[in-house]
Amino acid sequence: MKVDAKQQPVESEFDRKIAEWCLSFAGNPRISLKLWDGTEYYSGEQAPIAQMEIRDRGVLFNMLRSPPMGFGEGYIKGQIEVHGDFYEFVDEASRAYSQRATRGYHLQKFRSRLAALRSNTLSRSRENVHQHYDLGNDFYKLWLDERMVYTCAYYERPDATLDEAQVAKLDHVCRKLRLKPGQRVIEAGCGWGALAMHMAERYGVFVTAYNNSHEQVVWARAEAESRGLSNRVTFVEDDYRTITGHCDAFVSVGMLEHVGLSNFRALGSIIERCLKPHGFGLIHSIGRSNPRPPDPWIARHIFPGGHIPSLGDMATIFEPFKFSILDVENLRLHYAKTCRTWLHNFEAVADKVRRMHSEEFVRTWRLYLAGSAAGFKSGTLQLYQVVFAPRGNNDVPMTRHYQYATGPDAE
Amino acid sequence: MKVDAKQQPVESEFDRKIAEWCLSFAGNPRISLKLWDGTEYYSGEQAPIAQMEIRDRGVLFNMLRSPPMGFGEGYIKGQIEVHGDFYEFVDEASRAYSQRATRGYHLQKFRSRLAALRSNTLSRSRENVHQHYDLGNDFYKLWLDERMVYTCAYYERPDATLDEAQVAKLDHVCRKLRLKPGQRVIEAGCGWGALAMHMAERYGVFVTAYNNSHEQVVWARAEAESRGLSNRVTFVEDDYRTITGHCDAFVSVGMLEHVGLSNFRALGSIIERCLKPHGFGLIHSIGRSNPRPPDPWIARHIFPGGHIPSLGDMATIFEPFKFSILDVENLRLHYAKTCRTWLHNFEAVADKVRRMHSEEFVRTWRLYLAGSAAGFKSGTLQLYQVVFAPRGNNDVPMTRHYQYATGPDAE
Repeated sequence: MKVDAKQQPVESEFDRKIAEWCLSFAGNPRISLKLWDGTEYYSGEQAPIAQMEIRDRGVLFNMLRSPPMGFGEGYIKGQIEVHGDFYEFVDEASRAYSQRATRGYHLQKFRSRLAALRSNTLSRSRENVHQHYDLGNDFYKLWLDERMVYTCAYYERPDATLDEAQVAKLDHVCRKLRLKPGQRVIEAGCGWGALAMHMAERYGVFVTAYNNSHEQVVWARAEAESRGLSNRVTFVEDDYRTITGHCDAFVSVGMLEHVGLSNFRALGSIIERCLKPHGFGLIHSIGRSNPRPPDPWIARHIFPGGHIPSLGDMATIFEPFKFSILDVENLRLHYAKTCRTWLHNFEAVADKVRRMHSEEFVRTWRLYLAGSAAGFKSGTLQLYQVVFAPRGNNDVPMTRHYQYATGPDAE
Repeated sequence: MKVDAKQQPVESEFDRKIAEWCLSFAGNPRISLKLWDGTEYYSGEQAPIAQMEIRDRGVLFNMLRSPPMGFGEGYIKGQIEVHGDFYEFVDEASRAYSQRATRGYHLQKFRSRLAALRSNTLSRSRENVHQHYDLGNDFYKLWLDERMVYTCAYYERPDATLDEAQVAKLDHVCRKLRLKPGQRVIEAGCGWGALAMHMAERYGVFVTAYNNSHEQVVWARAEAESRGLSNRVTFVEDDYRTITGHCDAFVSVGMLEHVGLSNFRALGSIIERCLKPHGFGLIHSIGRSNPRPPDPWIARHIFPGGHIPSLGDMATIFEPFKFSILDVENLRLHYAKTCRTWLHNFEAVADKVRRMHSEEFVRTWRLYLAGSAAGFKSGTLQLYQVVFAPRGNNDVPMTRHYQYATGPDAE
């Protein structure tokens, strides 16, 4: 199907040019554009899979100024409507966008470095975390798994449920860390404490877990109490920069995205100080295939102060301290599946969320979850699990067979 | 045992200070220093494991100017002698050196970038390769495995022989690339062709393999002919920068060390041009835990134009082209074992090598092989296998279980 704009009236030739440019900038996705005056525009050869309706002329110009911001703001305010399956629409947009010709590597890297200059101080980090994670445990409980794990799951079996895949992820992390009963573990950024409690309960270790979010720490402490783990897991409501003591394993799952590039070396220095010579570390983080500044819409509405690093960026945590990077696994397709499941769960409770918050809130979270799922699928987002050890630690398994044995006792 | 230099005569207080400084700079290894006038110096608490005899006062000052160069030159010329097991001596020196306090990350990184400015042109690369790899196939045949594989082996089983571990490495690489019969593979830097022939013979693929070394290519072609593989494997005597055509898999094992940091982007661009959208790539290279300029002694005697990258350095191959890094495995302990086996084989034929070349040649290669083994053990050297795919390639296995199944048909 091809709708030729030239055969239909448009408000002006200028608007048509702008619309044309927007589609071209987006990599010419199979999405038709409907303007406020009813004209439809589409340049592709294949049938469009969805229609994007722009209801306000100003929005078109906002998209021209900053495509992600213009679209995101327009969508959550209802000035843009999507006709067709919302996830399919975002998925197609993400696919087309990611397949555009590569350009501007050095410019993007420079802009990323520039963005990193806005350092996350202790108080700013606390505010940033508060804005997202203190939205209310009741909200997250509506659509996360039963353990409240808000990071990439691991679908070891294709038919696993989200609950099963989250447990599989916890075990995958524990196996990579080669936990042994009685060891001390420090966790930086522990969410609702699922990993900390799993390590203590299943692997017999003692965990000190740090988190800046008051709501999460309160929840985690109550949960540890009810599971009889209070003597093995300590939840500290504080920033990772206040970590003290020594540990056999250092783990951080889904915190690095909030740290900011300018603090990577400080994080490395903290790990060097606390990780024993024969210890292991694991950092699990969303990543990019190339350095890029933060997405402005995500920074405004979802993760203020966040910055998604490339693997080269992540290397700057380890290299100043000569950590030996042992293993990197990219789990991006697992996160694509996790986010789609979250989106599915979220849509099922959207009415409830609307009553708790607002229509704008629902549209914000829909776009964030669908955009994340699509980004992991198209490859604009990656998920890296990096295992490392202090230099000179030769107590390292020769092969990775141990990661593919099952259960806490396997090695 | 503690030998107090103050109780024995030394040529001068100044020489004693220099000797003291050398040991301290080296991280105070358990090695005693014997000077040309017979005085012995040792500052440790534990018994020394070897003695280093400096027979010429000038050498001490050369070591002051550049420790690796001063030691290396002194040793190969016989102005330095090692009493005790040579490997144990090098191992202890490497261990102590690698455990010194970390400092100068940015300075080392800057010096590494500076060294990278000396670009490897096509003709310079050919000369560099000629100096090392065209030493004569007869020489390498004396101490390598039967397939002439001159890269890190993979000791999947601890009791594997070198021959077995090299075959296991070839299979490990092939499994990671997920080769399917009929596919086209491009190999950059193929040595004596062992991997190219293994891929064609066992995995049914068609291989075009590039190599700058005339002696190696002649050997590889004859071998392919005798194994009836000439119609499936093409050996091209040329630089990786002349690679053309398209492939389902791009592989390079042990070439990146010779490429030079300033050519990393060019290498990435070549891979982008030739690797099909659903293909996979693998680069296997010696690495560093942190950016460092090339070792001057190694650059002079072993690998002119070589530069060992950190993982962050390696990221600059992939990031400009948005390749998705899927998997990084660090095999440094496998290379430590491989180099020790090579050293063992080499010592068994040292008399023959001395007759083919010279005493200085034997000492050069002894130091290079022992130093490499010790470097991989202490962690000053790493071995990274990096698997990557073009952006948007979602034909990726969800888990790495497939790498730990056996044989060419496993998936």
